[in-house]
Amino acid sequence: MNIRYAERTADLNGTATREIFKLLSRPEIISFAGGLPASDLLPEKEVAEITESLLSGKDAKRILQYGTSEGFADFRETLVGYVKQVGIDGIDTDNTLVISGGQQGIDLMCKALLDKGDTVLVEQPTYLAVLQILKSYEAKAVGVNANADGLDIDDLEKKIIAHKPKMLYVVPTFSNPTGKTYSRANREKIAEITAKYGVIVLEDDPYGKLRFSGESVNSLKSFAAEDNTVYITSFSKLVSPGLRVGVAVGGKEIIRKLTVCKQGTDLHTSNLSQLIVKRFVEEYLGETVKRSIPVYRKRRDAMTAALDRYMPFFDRTDPEGGLFVFGSLPVSLNAEKLLPKAIEHNVAYIQGSVFFADGGGENTVRLNYSNASAEQIEQGIRALGSLFASYLT
Amino acid sequence: MNIRYAERTADLNGTATREIFKLLSRPEIISFAGGLPASDLLPEKEVAEITESLLSGKDAKRILQYGTSEGFADFRETLVGYVKQVGIDGIDTDNTLVISGGQQGIDLMCKALLDKGDTVLVEQPTYLAVLQILKSYEAKAVGVNANADGLDIDDLEKKIIAHKPKMLYVVPTFSNPTGKTYSRANREKIAEITAKYGVIVLEDDPYGKLRFSGESVNSLKSFAAEDNTVYITSFSKLVSPGLRVGVAVGGKEIIRKLTVCKQGTDLHTSNLSQLIVKRFVEEYLGETVKRSIPVYRKRRDAMTAALDRYMPFFDRTDPEGGLFVFGSLPVSLNAEKLLPKAIEHNVAYIQGSVFFADGGGENTVRLNYSNASAEQIEQGIRALGSLFASYLT
Repeated sequence: MNIRYAERTADLNGTATREIFKLLSRPEIISFAGGLPASDLLPEKEVAEITESLLSGKDAKRILQYGTSEGFADFRETLVGYVKQVGIDGIDTDNTLVISGGQQGIDLMCKALLDKGDTVLVEQPTYLAVLQILKSYEAKAVGVNANADGLDIDDLEKKIIAHKPKMLYVVPTFSNPTGKTYSRANREKIAEITAKYGVIVLEDDPYGKLRFSGESVNSLKSFAAEDNTVYITSFSKLVSPGLRVGVAVGGKEIIRKLTVCKQGTDLHTSNLSQLIVKRFVEEYLGETVKRSIPVYRKRRDAMTAALDRYMPFFDRTDPEGGLFVFGSLPVSLNAEKLLPKAIEHNVAYIQGSVFFADGGGENTVRLNYSNASAEQIEQGIRALGSLFASYLT
Repeated sequence: MNIRYAERTADLNGTATREIFKLLSRPEIISFAGGLPASDLLPEKEVAEITESLLSGKDAKRILQYGTSEGFADFRETLVGYVKQVGIDGIDTDNTLVISGGQQGIDLMCKALLDKGDTVLVEQPTYLAVLQILKSYEAKAVGVNANADGLDIDDLEKKIIAHKPKMLYVVPTFSNPTGKTYSRANREKIAEITAKYGVIVLEDDPYGKLRFSGESVNSLKSFAAEDNTVYITSFSKLVSPGLRVGVAVGGKEIIRKLTVCKQGTDLHTSNLSQLIVKRFVEEYLGETVKRSIPVYRKRRDAMTAALDRYMPFFDRTDPEGGLFVFGSLPVSLNAEKLLPKAIEHNVAYIQGSVFFADGGGENTVRLNYSNASAEQIEQGIRALGSLFASYLT
């Protein structure tokens, strides 16, 4: 039978990232392609302890029975306290919605806000999955120029005026794919301009806790005077991506809309996952972050040192945290075309062009350093550098 | 700030069911309003045992790390075997997609298939959440007449010709809200007619394993000659709703589309939930169903006996399984208006009108018997009968 799919799916394919993951099962591959937390840092022991305690205690019944779409009230209390760490204050549980990972937060925001043909501004380049999700809502992504300080504020204002976007999507701290962090002044400007024009901001902060150097900056939301910013974060990089838990924080009205949208989407987030993360945040998160930082710092340092040594022609970002380094090869090199060659040499990366809303970036590359050892990083970048160099004229 | 939401959300409110749940926290209330499995049957001990074993063994790493949108390959193998029990044969794992509960299966089907203005046929009355989800895709629900045997086949064909629907949504076994089961002959006819006109069928089967009497019938999908039927089932009623796990089974092409849609929605289903359900299905499901059936049968019997005794004016269905009895009060009674009175008398139900796509059903009532004891059922229906009787002229 010839199935008539929705128009929104015509151009919808698996993201490059996940399709490539499948090619990377060969054990000899050194992969800088993913965005996975380090497998050796995953807190198996702690999760096992928490889970045993939860399922043998008074929580077992409520874990196994249906929950509410908002998430458990006591977990939301924990989350209200948790987001104070990024400067979000003066809220209560009605400002929070438990979500099944950060990805769901993006999807629900699009569901609540976007009609076919609406425009969403994104940093150029931006998180790949957002571009896919926007397609699934038949919305248009328009890239905003950016620099080391954050968004180019003039370009932001120009594009708000030109495109009347409903939403701006940003990852202001250790951005995916660039790894860079918007300055405090840049955040204040973004908050000011989006409020002025009535643009909703979706601030995605999956990596904020993973800072290895530099000064921490409060969330963009904490600088937003109006109720126009929704902040989402996930526990995928700190506790476990496999549990699928995050939180959206925003004005009560929009959180209520997101809750109704979530109800139709998956009814509620796994109760067991919610309470594992609750207990983890309360009892283990501090020490886990402390244990993880030196490991990730070492890997970032190995990555930047290897890049500077073996790929001096690579114009790269200088991340103070998070999972990624991003940069440009000389313009004669096409990162997408060279990827199969790299995989032949047992190294994988993601071509940067997939992160560009408006096209371009053919010579850019995203490199993930969180899930490989310092030795593998050195070895992989050496191989990559020699491959790229061989194509330089 | 005045937020411009998507048009789809204008008419989107929390479902009556979930809003009412919140009113029902008073312990003295006897609730026939929900659709919850019996809390006392939830398999806490088994889930605790499985979880301990999973997190202390070789599965711990893959549980905590990212998974694939399709779900774990070995769980999908288990599911291929599982759906043989409803007559679905000759498939492999590429015909399956792990979903975060049955609700997500409905949402993904709509996402993959429906453009704004498309029509979906539903049984009249049908599962409430489907009507909400269709609104969120700006699709139109049209009711198909039904009888004790299943859908009215002439009306189905008439409405296919008149509305050119993209999809037919049905719960053929122990339907929500009516509790009735479509006959084998009716299923064959539905399969034949939908194939003839190229209509996709979404068969939702959350209750099929909960049969107390009568002969079991294979899934509608098992009678479908063409690849036009997607079967979804969930483990919410047999293992735990709180874990949010189900499966969609269909043609490889449509399953691939659903997978891409799922990727943007929540990336993947909780890995821990997946492997708990996998192990449960393999080791405990048989005995759990065996243990549950007599309990639910007793409650259904208590419900039907009490209805016949205290509400002889209630024209009801005669369910052979599942969670619900449905019926009509004399037309002078409005079930929605009487609900607050019932709650004053410490009994709750759902007015049937919310299940009707085309309006009507003001005198109908859905009663859930799965989460109250036989004594509570007797007491609650006695109170309800006397309330309703007092409004009869």
